[in-house]
Amino acid sequence: MLYGGIEAGGTKIVCAVGTGPADLPTQISFPTTSPGDTLARIIAFFQQQPLAAVGIGSFGPISPDHHAPDYGYITSTPKPGWAQIDIAGTIGRALGVPVGFDTDVNAAALGEWRWGAAQGLSTFLYLTVGTGIGGGGLSNDRLMHGLLHPEMGHIQLPHDRQADPFPGICPYHGDCLEGLASGPAMKARWGVPAEALPADHPAWALEGHYLALACVNFICTLSPQRIILGGGVMSQSHLFPLIHQEVQALLNGYIQAPAILRQIDTYIMPPGLGSRVGVLGALALAGQAAGQAPPLP
Amino acid sequence: MLYGGIEAGGTKIVCAVGTGPADLPTQISFPTTSPGDTLARIIAFFQQQPLAAVGIGSFGPISPDHHAPDYGYITSTPKPGWAQIDIAGTIGRALGVPVGFDTDVNAAALGEWRWGAAQGLSTFLYLTVGTGIGGGGLSNDRLMHGLLHPEMGHIQLPHDRQADPFPGICPYHGDCLEGLASGPAMKARWGVPAEALPADHPAWALEGHYLALACVNFICTLSPQRIILGGGVMSQSHLFPLIHQEVQALLNGYIQAPAILRQIDTYIMPPGLGSRVGVLGALALAGQAAGQAPPLP
Repeated sequence: MLYGGIEAGGTKIVCAVGTGPADLPTQISFPTTSPGDTLARIIAFFQQQPLAAVGIGSFGPISPDHHAPDYGYITSTPKPGWAQIDIAGTIGRALGVPVGFDTDVNAAALGEWRWGAAQGLSTFLYLTVGTGIGGGGLSNDRLMHGLLHPEMGHIQLPHDRQADPFPGICPYHGDCLEGLASGPAMKARWGVPAEALPADHPAWALEGHYLALACVNFICTLSPQRIILGGGVMSQSHLFPLIHQEVQALLNGYIQAPAILRQIDTYIMPPGLGSRVGVLGALALAGQAAGQAPPLP
Repeated sequence: MLYGGIEAGGTKIVCAVGTGPADLPTQISFPTTSPGDTLARIIAFFQQQPLAAVGIGSFGPISPDHHAPDYGYITSTPKPGWAQIDIAGTIGRALGVPVGFDTDVNAAALGEWRWGAAQGLSTFLYLTVGTGIGGGGLSNDRLMHGLLHPEMGHIQLPHDRQADPFPGICPYHGDCLEGLASGPAMKARWGVPAEALPADHPAWALEGHYLALACVNFICTLSPQRIILGGGVMSQSHLFPLIHQEVQALLNGYIQAPAILRQIDTYIMPPGLGSRVGVLGALALAGQAAGQAPPLP
């Protein structure tokens, strides 16, 4: 049974056909252009494949609620041309197969749950730190939804403007988490892209500080069994020990759980699926849509 | 079928027997003293009643995981004598009935879901603002658990020390939400109990500000369908419009949901069960333990 996975990012689309991490023979990637051209290219890629279902992990915001009139749409995105686009419906009708549809980060979380660092967990988070910051996850064994879907990138954090006078770059909130700690925020603050900053640059301690504050808030709010941190910024693996130390310091022994007190290296960790987490997560959504995966919504 | 409900607070115990809000004929309340005396008094109250189950909504932290060796215990509380006390096991064995056991705020959330302001919702929060600040709720139709259970009171927020030089009173974190905005924090900041501050005192705008920041973070993290705010401080109902206005201002249109943009009066609201939410929540836990309620864990 072959599945199609679509990692639909704001700058890049990745499409793959296969059954899982050990069997992903066909994969392509191309830039996200206009909706018409992009959707046509996605459909053309999958059209010749005998698929049981496709899964789409999409940039957002999206409407993931099956009962909503705009289910399957990318909704109020500022990305030109992409607001109110019926991505799931267009692809599903063209290919004639069931479609699994969720946020890119919920898809990644599902991929980690099936094949990666979250196997066997019932409540955990997946946070991506890159062009933007976004989070998803499972709560009570099911992908997190609610009024819409979790955002996570736009929480408000302590911001010591004497230590860090940078005002933040979020067009909505200025110095929310994404405004302070996304890749573009790092570039705006330091004048060079994050990946050009050496490991001993003070940028990293500050980045670790904001991400640790965010982890503390997510831990206190959701009590996740694990937090998986992915995305381009987190490919700087020296960030992890900085985050580990500061999360422990900030919580200050308040949460008496061995996972935090003694095993924080595996409590906050990178995705088990590495850079393939996005497209494999979309594949996991396809499996769920086809009814082949254990019952998640 | 009669149930017993136990609202086990750090300063007061409320016990009731009945079937729901319309039928709660027997109720007592007494101070929380030593574990031995307190548990004996609880057991004596219920012993003459023909109960199908009891429910306990407890102060914490607690161990709510059925698979944990310390399930049913109050764990690392600073309350003298109460750390590592098997409250659920002691009561269940003495009464010989099934026991439902969770945090006081998860119990309150369940009560609101069965009979109050959260009927029909699958993902929502209940936050109490009083002696402490704590939160619980349902996610995907089930009470929120994870590594342990949500805390919510100890999230970190922006704290402008020029506008509010008060350092906070949390012994673990200083100026976390609870350290800045609990009832005792208000008393320490202003020198008089919160209930003695007139409605036009600047204390309330500041309190509304911190609670709005907290709501924004919970909205971005969990995407709840509603936030219910209870507890002693929230009995000052003039706080609600302050919170409504500031949540909308802080989110700044980012979340395009009518519930937030146009119906915030019912998006962030007081408990439908009023001051009985705690003991009725415990009764709902009892119903769940007896298998009489719809299947929640």
